[in-house]
Amino acid sequence: MSAIVIRDVKTILTAPEGINLVVVKVETSEPGLYGLGCATFTQRYLAVATAIDEYLKPFLIGKDVQRIEDIWQSAMVSSYWRNGPVLNNALSGVDMALWDIKGKIMNQPLYQLLGGKCREGVAIYRHADGRDLEEIVDNVARFMEQGVRHIRCQWGGYGGRNDYVTPDNSLPGAYFNPDAYARSVPQLFERMREKFGFGVELMHDVHERLSTIEAVRLAKQLEPYRLFFLEDPLAPEQLDGFKMLRMQSATPIAMGELFVHPREWVPLIAGGLIDYIRVHISAIGGITPAKKLAVLSEAFNVRTAWHGPGDVSPVGHAANLHLDLNAVNFGIQEWYSFSDRIQEVFPGCPTVRNGYAYVNEAPGLGIDIDEKLAAKYPCKNELPEWTLVRLPDGGPGRP
Amino acid sequence: MSAIVIRDVKTILTAPEGINLVVVKVETSEPGLYGLGCATFTQRYLAVATAIDEYLKPFLIGKDVQRIEDIWQSAMVSSYWRNGPVLNNALSGVDMALWDIKGKIMNQPLYQLLGGKCREGVAIYRHADGRDLEEIVDNVARFMEQGVRHIRCQWGGYGGRNDYVTPDNSLPGAYFNPDAYARSVPQLFERMREKFGFGVELMHDVHERLSTIEAVRLAKQLEPYRLFFLEDPLAPEQLDGFKMLRMQSATPIAMGELFVHPREWVPLIAGGLIDYIRVHISAIGGITPAKKLAVLSEAFNVRTAWHGPGDVSPVGHAANLHLDLNAVNFGIQEWYSFSDRIQEVFPGCPTVRNGYAYVNEAPGLGIDIDEKLAAKYPCKNELPEWTLVRLPDGGPGRP
Amino acid sequence: MSAIVIRDVKTILTAPEGINLVVVKVETSEPGLYGLGCATFTQRYLAVATAIDEYLKPFLIGKDVQRIEDIWQSAMVSSYWRNGPVLNNALSGVDMALWDIKGKIMNQPLYQLLGGKCREGVAIYRHADGRDLEEIVDNVARFMEQGVRHIRCQWGGYGGRNDYVTPDNSLPGAYFNPDAYARSVPQLFERMREKFGFGVELMHDVHERLSTIEAVRLAKQLEPYRLFFLEDPLAPEQLDGFKMLRMQSATPIAMGELFVHPREWVPLIAGGLIDYIRVHISAIGGITPAKKLAVLSEAFNVRTAWHGPGDVSPVGHAANLHLDLNAVNFGIQEWYSFSDRIQEVFPGCPTVRNGYAYVNEAPGLGIDIDEKLAAKYPCKNELPEWTLVRLPDGGPGRP
Amino acid sequence: MSAIVIRDVKTILTAPEGINLVVVKVETSEPGLYGLGCATFTQRYLAVATAIDEYLKPFLIGKDVQRIEDIWQSAMVSSYWRNGPVLNNALSGVDMALWDIKGKIMNQPLYQLLGGKCREGVAIYRHADGRDLEEIVDNVARFMEQGVRHIRCQWGGYGGRNDYVTPDNSLPGAYFNPDAYARSVPQLFERMREKFGFGVELMHDVHERLSTIEAVRLAKQLEPYRLFFLEDPLAPEQLDGFKMLRMQSATPIAMGELFVHPREWVPLIAGGLIDYIRVHISAIGGITPAKKLAVLSEAFNVRTAWHGPGDVSPVGHAANLHLDLNAVNFGIQEWYSFSDRIQEVFPGCPTVRNGYAYVNEAPGLGIDIDEKLAAKYPCKNELPEWTLVRLPDGGPGRP
Repeated sequence: MSAIVIRDVKTILTAPEGINLVVVKVETSEPGLYGLGCATFTQRYLAVATAIDEYLKPFLIGKDVQRIEDIWQSAMVSSYWRNGPVLNNALSGVDMALWDIKGKIMNQPLYQLLGGKCREGVAIYRHADGRDLEEIVDNVARFMEQGVRHIRCQWGGYGGRNDYVTPDNSLPGAYFNPDAYARSVPQLFERMREKFGFGVELMHDVHERLSTIEAVRLAKQLEPYRLFFLEDPLAPEQLDGFKMLRMQSATPIAMGELFVHPREWVPLIAGGLIDYIRVHISAIGGITPAKKLAVLSEAFNVRTAWHGPGDVSPVGHAANLHLDLNAVNFGIQEWYSFSDRIQEVFPGCPTVRNGYAYVNEAPGLGIDIDEKLAAKYPCKNELPEWTLVRLPDGGPGRP
Repeated sequence: MSAIVIRDVKTILTAPEGINLVVVKVETSEPGLYGLGCATFTQRYLAVATAIDEYLKPFLIGKDVQRIEDIWQSAMVSSYWRNGPVLNNALSGVDMALWDIKGKIMNQPLYQLLGGKCREGVAIYRHADGRDLEEIVDNVARFMEQGVRHIRCQWGGYGGRNDYVTPDNSLPGAYFNPDAYARSVPQLFERMREKFGFGVELMHDVHERLSTIEAVRLAKQLEPYRLFFLEDPLAPEQLDGFKMLRMQSATPIAMGELFVHPREWVPLIAGGLIDYIRVHISAIGGITPAKKLAVLSEAFNVRTAWHGPGDVSPVGHAANLHLDLNAVNFGIQEWYSFSDRIQEVFPGCPTVRNGYAYVNEAPGLGIDIDEKLAAKYPCKNELPEWTLVRLPDGGPGRP
Repeated sequence: MSAIVIRDVKTILTAPEGINLVVVKVETSEPGLYGLGCATFTQRYLAVATAIDEYLKPFLIGKDVQRIEDIWQSAMVSSYWRNGPVLNNALSGVDMALWDIKGKIMNQPLYQLLGGKCREGVAIYRHADGRDLEEIVDNVARFMEQGVRHIRCQWGGYGGRNDYVTPDNSLPGAYFNPDAYARSVPQLFERMREKFGFGVELMHDVHERLSTIEAVRLAKQLEPYRLFFLEDPLAPEQLDGFKMLRMQSATPIAMGELFVHPREWVPLIAGGLIDYIRVHISAIGGITPAKKLAVLSEAFNVRTAWHGPGDVSPVGHAANLHLDLNAVNFGIQEWYSFSDRIQEVFPGCPTVRNGYAYVNEAPGLGIDIDEKLAAKYPCKNELPEWTLVRLPDGGPGRP
Repeated sequence: MSAIVIRDVKTILTAPEGINLVVVKVETSEPGLYGLGCATFTQRYLAVATAIDEYLKPFLIGKDVQRIEDIWQSAMVSSYWRNGPVLNNALSGVDMALWDIKGKIMNQPLYQLLGGKCREGVAIYRHADGRDLEEIVDNVARFMEQGVRHIRCQWGGYGGRNDYVTPDNSLPGAYFNPDAYARSVPQLFERMREKFGFGVELMHDVHERLSTIEAVRLAKQLEPYRLFFLEDPLAPEQLDGFKMLRMQSATPIAMGELFVHPREWVPLIAGGLIDYIRVHISAIGGITPAKKLAVLSEAFNVRTAWHGPGDVSPVGHAANLHLDLNAVNFGIQEWYSFSDRIQEVFPGCPTVRNGYAYVNEAPGLGIDIDEKLAAKYPCKNELPEWTLVRLPDGGPGRP
């Protein structure tokens, strides 16, 4: 039997809900056999597309689709300089597509190749925000009624309400006030526990907006409210700070949506400095490195909580879920509600029932794309204001 | 006085010697005032160009050219996911151009803005290789006659001679044999010291081709030959291995041409684990982070040895030299000989006399580009074989 | 073009407000081109003057004014024994003056040479004290009305109210009672938060007056009051104690006004043991080491809070502000109100509006000195009582 | 009985052998009772004199001469900013003089107050250098004939022979070549051991002239020659490097002649990183801190080797010896031969017999000064070339 080889690699850019998504389609020498992967780096989607179209595609044509590990390793270092969000996402698009193809070749859902299910459904968490505490209460209550048991609460946008800030200069940017924000969070959870008691799991996303010592102070202050976890308390530039968090606080820590390099996660996990690893799996290079990261985490008693917002395509969400079903150290899955339009563009989207997500049981990732429909929702290259963050004195901050 | 602002950002792709170079030209609101920067990531130059043209350019238009620090910080995090060779090189192109403009505004060579010269000329090292020992001897001797005092010796290509390997499969790739290579290096330096004695400084580039323990063994074996440094003994994936190198060997260590993330260099430098930091300065984001890296290194007695091969444009070489002239902890500068053609395309190239390099004393970086001429040498997108490395059993290696 | 060289170095001693200030004037071979630097070590100003007049001046005459880095490094070790407040202040006077000259040569404010502004104005903090809580309340309120957002609160002098102590012997000295002082601080902030709520940032200066474990206890007790920082909680002799502070308390820590040696700051910063570095920049040797210290701090997420009381000359205050405008990791600036007399002696003093300080936009540091007027306010060599500190039992304490 | 108090403090500057010495004379309320101390910081002697005359003198007049500990502590912090070579030497002059007075009051040599002798004589080491190996052999042989059992060998000046260097620019300075110097040292000791065998103890002074890794390499290479110690292998700026020295080499390490701050010596000693502590005792503040440093060293099995060259006055040498006689963890004493002229100016100089030094058994330090004679040898303020050190490329080095 001659090997099935890669015949073409296509980058599909689509934004059905206004968020730029990057999906890779790997076509094979076997008629009708193809795979899909997520390569969504929404803020730099065109650079990812260039990396795929100009470099990965010629590298891949003719290669045996089954040799995923060899392709991943060779492609990773084929640029000599490696890692980073552009190259990792590009590689992820290919990697997920190859796993999708492999599942189809074996006529099995991906989780079966990984070792089978450890659970039937994947517990999810949802995001509840609001301009005031009662709006948040209402949103939390609505999710609870849907059976969701894990809810992330946020007062205003990341970094808190805009009305906290009186900027002192006229530079453009999304201003925020770390002090006002930090003070508001314990109030938020005091109200939530007052309203809902314990039993529902609550979390909060700092979105890397606090200084190290402020994050420590917040984590200590939040202890009485028993968070499921405090998410991304520190930026990738502050990784040394996790040691102090661990010395002073028993609030569980989830970290990693911004990670793009093994030196970010290996010492953190081996050092026992976090409880949940929540990388954006396409940002680290796809399913191949993500399943290894789950294994590494298991060795050090860290659980998974893959990044799962709207700037992960449904293909990426499906990949998350296949990993979640298999990993013994699965923790929780961030979730985003697929609109009807998204489900039309991506037939076979995962579904949610009673706070648990389920994959389509079709072979591979179990999800497809309607390319014609996708083309109706072109991406737009616009700069979102939130990526230009400023502190009250006008100095540059972190988004 | 109203601020001078950025009017346009252009990416210039050129390959006068067959190596793809990426140069950024930032034009200002001041007629005739512009700056040049190097953004050369030769293996993914089109992805860098996309990052600049599609994302940095619209981010930058209208911004005050003098506010380099603010621009660098804001642009860095404007993609949310950050670091990595594509985004860093793109940012470097802009950053160097802004420093070039700043020097021109002040009518001074860049080194004056940094605090002035600590030395008149910049000691360089050159690369001498050969298929056999006597060819290397001849090449070393030729450099010594030119006054070069620091010479890197290599037997065959990186990873050693091709004839070391009998591949065990038919996969394409640049095969090498780590065992044969490691054994050959002490022989190489025994011959060099026999021939040239001590007094000339010799170095060797492992190019990250050895396992950690093999690199430790080699560094110990090389002690009698007193290398100036052993270059890139371990890959970015092996950074923990430097502790063992330091416990066992007194061979000086230079590291970092592949670095693209602060977690690669900060712990290594603060931990006293290397002697020379040799990043490719465009790969970490340009002059702004490189001068900070020099300062960080000074605090921990690490010296600089910026990456300076043919895939750094003359603009990048000039940036290296301005930093070298100023930094008290300058160590050595890798050097590459500019062809006549390169010097025509880039008027004002640095010059070398008697083993020392000198910058053009014109304001800013002191170097220009002839865009029409540059356009005559278009880049080609080809995959060099050396980036697809394989071990004797056919398994993927590191380039 | 021949280099501009140092023609003369003059030490100017003046005390317009009764605080001895040391200013260095470096004159150049270019008629009318000179620079000013701050060398104020008020407690030993004559020793600093001797170090400048007798040693640095002959070392410097004839040297190229632009080669600041080389001059700084060479002068630093020219005494073989180095560091310490006398030699560092002397060197600072020269170093700042050379940066002032460099800015004038380039016709730009100093912050432009450093990489431009990251912010328009520099947030300041002021000192509010009082004999009783209501006097402090009044003083805080007055600053808040002026727009100041960061206020340091102190009950009595450093180390607390004099009436805390019943000395047990007749030795002269400024007695204080650490126990009474430590107990008073939480009361102070309970009252301030009761009165002003949160939103205004409050800090407190221990002035190194507590034992290590007492400082740890205090830092923990202060957590509910959310200090912006606790200032100088430990003396330079107690630096190991910061580890315990970090293990137990989330109160932000500012440290360093007494630092005069790199072994004081490098391990503290690299170890993540403080949040704000607040050296007296002339006491570490001027702008050259201070900008390096800001860079080192940035690598470890420490922010700057340079020492800025009345024993920093307006020249030194201007240097602080130029660094503050540029550094991305600027935190806060201690501030001192310039009297009319000070402003007459030092034309071009920085100004404050609405809690933010602004530099004069003239080239270099942007500040001058009226030497004739300065001569009308001669320094007096008197021993201030507060430098002779005693504990209740008469034993020597730390000031 | 009323206390004997300080009546006057005088600074005596003298240079009988061309080396500027600073001696402090403390006169008391008791007629004829005075003490002498060494405050020699030869490179900045006038700054030390100013610190004494203008600040310490008024601080001290009227104070009880017997309360040395209180005076030392209070004076140390009376300048608020403290430590450093100027203030420490000034304080040392007073401190030693007070111990001299105390001994005279008790009519006992100082060592008796410290707890009495642990040994009769103090083993010394001498310095043997030469332009070539045979000149060094001759000098070593001459010392051995005198009974000296510990000899420091040096080929050329510190940093090696001047003829090692071909400077590459015209900047003034004392150029040296670290590579040539490092290579020469093992050759030196190979010859010495070949000539003299083992039994005589040999040492070598790196004088902080090597990079960290070069010092490690040298210490390893010297192991076969069994040095008594390798002296000052690293500069105060390189203290982290001692860990690597300890991991790789069994060559004993002596360190500290440049130390001026407790953060230099405390971690080094408590960390077990050196074998001999060899501070210049006036540079750390005199007998009071030096006896504490001996005690600290004993706790961590470090032995003493106080700095004892020509820029320690005979008063300082006497202080060294009194400490040496008492300390159980005495290691060795650096020695300098007193000329006849020095002995005339300083009646009561210590003596040497058969490789051991002996103090004068008179009360206190046992040494006096002939002030009239001292005045005949005025100090000269000249810059010695060796303090302006440059590397071969012209960059600033460390002296």
